[in-house]
Amino acid sequence: MDLKSTGEFGMIERIQAMLAGSDADIPLSIGDDAAVLNSKLGYQTVVTTDALIEGIHFDLRYTPLEDLGWKALAVNLSDLAAMAADPTGAVISLALPTDWSSDQVEQLYQGLKACSETYQCPIIGGDTTGSPGPAMLSLTVLGEVQKDRYITRSGAKPGDFVCVSGDLGGSLTGFEALHSGPPGIVRTPAIDKLLRPFPRLQIAKELFTTLSLHAMIDISDGLGSEIHHICSKSKMGCLIEADKIPIHPEAKALSEQIGQDVIEMAMTSGEEYELLFTLSAGDLENFQNMKMDVPCHIIGEMKEASSGIKINRDGQIESIKANGWDHFKK
Amino acid sequence: MDLKSTGEFGMIERIQAMLAGSDADIPLSIGDDAAVLNSKLGYQTVVTTDALIEGIHFDLRYTPLEDLGWKALAVNLSDLAAMAADPTGAVISLALPTDWSSDQVEQLYQGLKACSETYQCPIIGGDTTGSPGPAMLSLTVLGEVQKDRYITRSGAKPGDFVCVSGDLGGSLTGFEALHSGPPGIVRTPAIDKLLRPFPRLQIAKELFTTLSLHAMIDISDGLGSEIHHICSKSKMGCLIEADKIPIHPEAKALSEQIGQDVIEMAMTSGEEYELLFTLSAGDLENFQNMKMDVPCHIIGEMKEASSGIKINRDGQIESIKANGWDHFKK
Repeated sequence: MDLKSTGEFGMIERIQAMLAGSDADIPLSIGDDAAVLNSKLGYQTVVTTDALIEGIHFDLRYTPLEDLGWKALAVNLSDLAAMAADPTGAVISLALPTDWSSDQVEQLYQGLKACSETYQCPIIGGDTTGSPGPAMLSLTVLGEVQKDRYITRSGAKPGDFVCVSGDLGGSLTGFEALHSGPPGIVRTPAIDKLLRPFPRLQIAKELFTTLSLHAMIDISDGLGSEIHHICSKSKMGCLIEADKIPIHPEAKALSEQIGQDVIEMAMTSGEEYELLFTLSAGDLENFQNMKMDVPCHIIGEMKEASSGIKINRDGQIESIKANGWDHFKK
Repeated sequence: MDLKSTGEFGMIERIQAMLAGSDADIPLSIGDDAAVLNSKLGYQTVVTTDALIEGIHFDLRYTPLEDLGWKALAVNLSDLAAMAADPTGAVISLALPTDWSSDQVEQLYQGLKACSETYQCPIIGGDTTGSPGPAMLSLTVLGEVQKDRYITRSGAKPGDFVCVSGDLGGSLTGFEALHSGPPGIVRTPAIDKLLRPFPRLQIAKELFTTLSLHAMIDISDGLGSEIHHICSKSKMGCLIEADKIPIHPEAKALSEQIGQDVIEMAMTSGEEYELLFTLSAGDLENFQNMKMDVPCHIIGEMKEASSGIKINRDGQIESIKANGWDHFKK
């Protein structure tokens, strides 16, 4: 049965049944004009929105619908992680081609539900409509922080260590494997990194509560682009050490295989959803003593703005281009 | 200059400059990973989302971009009105064809800004990306209510008066005029009603604070569809009196001109963004004594579910079809 025959209200009911019970503490959830969330004394509401558009952000030839659903929520949760916020609820706006089957919509929602349960972010509302063109998923996620206990892109100071969680280059490698590899290619960790990213919510909270973090951002457009955001918002410069950038093992292998510059790959690989943050220099020992599920690495140092935004490659100091992913320029 | 040459970050900066100063009380607004809103003691957060898709919800041949921007926010504010909530902030997710000019994007934002200022709902964040197909505007609007002081679709009781704000049929008439009329047709109130709807935020609050409202919904899919929602959520039936439905003057004129049933027009006209609500029978006098900028009319009565969902047309009792607007079935 396709969406034309199920109809909008039929589909909403199926979705509602699927998501039932995930939101015990929500006073009013899916099915009315709006949802209602309890506010907590001494807290602030954090809100972020991110859309995934077919043909820009994903290609259904390579993207299972469950993964797409997972990712649509995960990329928004990654923004909350970058603020050190806890998720409280998500609203989902879908525009779907009318020849999609109800089963396809359900697969999408299975992925949304899995991510929602993993990160305890109930889906509290939405809007589902037809699209005469590509599929579009627009999500808004709400979170909370204790009053003024959030972190922005703008607080970095000279002498701060620049750090990154996990490793980089995996998403780009996964993308290459899916687009250039044989059909039905076996899933590797790099492909998983692209299709089913893990928002760093827990590690962000641990870092924020343990250390003096000064600035944080998530890596959605690539390290080169994100370090530019931190420098520009903080009115700072930086020096990144190329040999300290943690590289995904498959990115290293691919770079050797095709003779591509692995640092360039790590700098431009978007959709990594790792955290980039700056740390007070005085906190080095505390940082090194932390036991983290996801390792974090120091990759450079913040400088005065006059020093520029630079990278040290085997003794050669070069400017970092902000040539991450720009969705209008593709 | 088109979006391809301005680029995503250039456009974000232009938009940010345009919206600057509209959000004095917001701790963190556009330009970081997320926005932050202060929570108020004893309040709850209300959240709603609605998308407008080119080719489904609007046709750029007939829709000036400023009106489109206005409407994208207004339809979400209408959902808040239906909850009797006050807006606190909006996040905007845009997917725009890359051949749009920066000026076009600015016109869109001028309309968003005008609506944002009129209803004191600051734009606090967003995501702007390219679209390989139609333009898509997805907005999420946050609001607040005092704890548990909101109204749902599900509280209607037998004997309640069924009421509607303003008049109906105008949007459909405006749509007909734009789509069948000559190019460059003069704007009439019916066309304004379609292109630049007024969310009934103030009247909703007045009604809610003055009277015992039991259920409320906004009319986005048509009166027939919305009364079905109230009846089904409240597990009730109703009897609507056809001759009491307030009709837009241009709808009346059009119905006479083309020989279409004006009640059918009023029942199926979507995108009216009027309020449909039920009122405790004991509150009739208070209701009649209210001085309202937008007149509200009693159009029928709630009944037990066994009575069905009916309309009285000159003594003939007929079932009301829920044949409002279904975006998958168009």
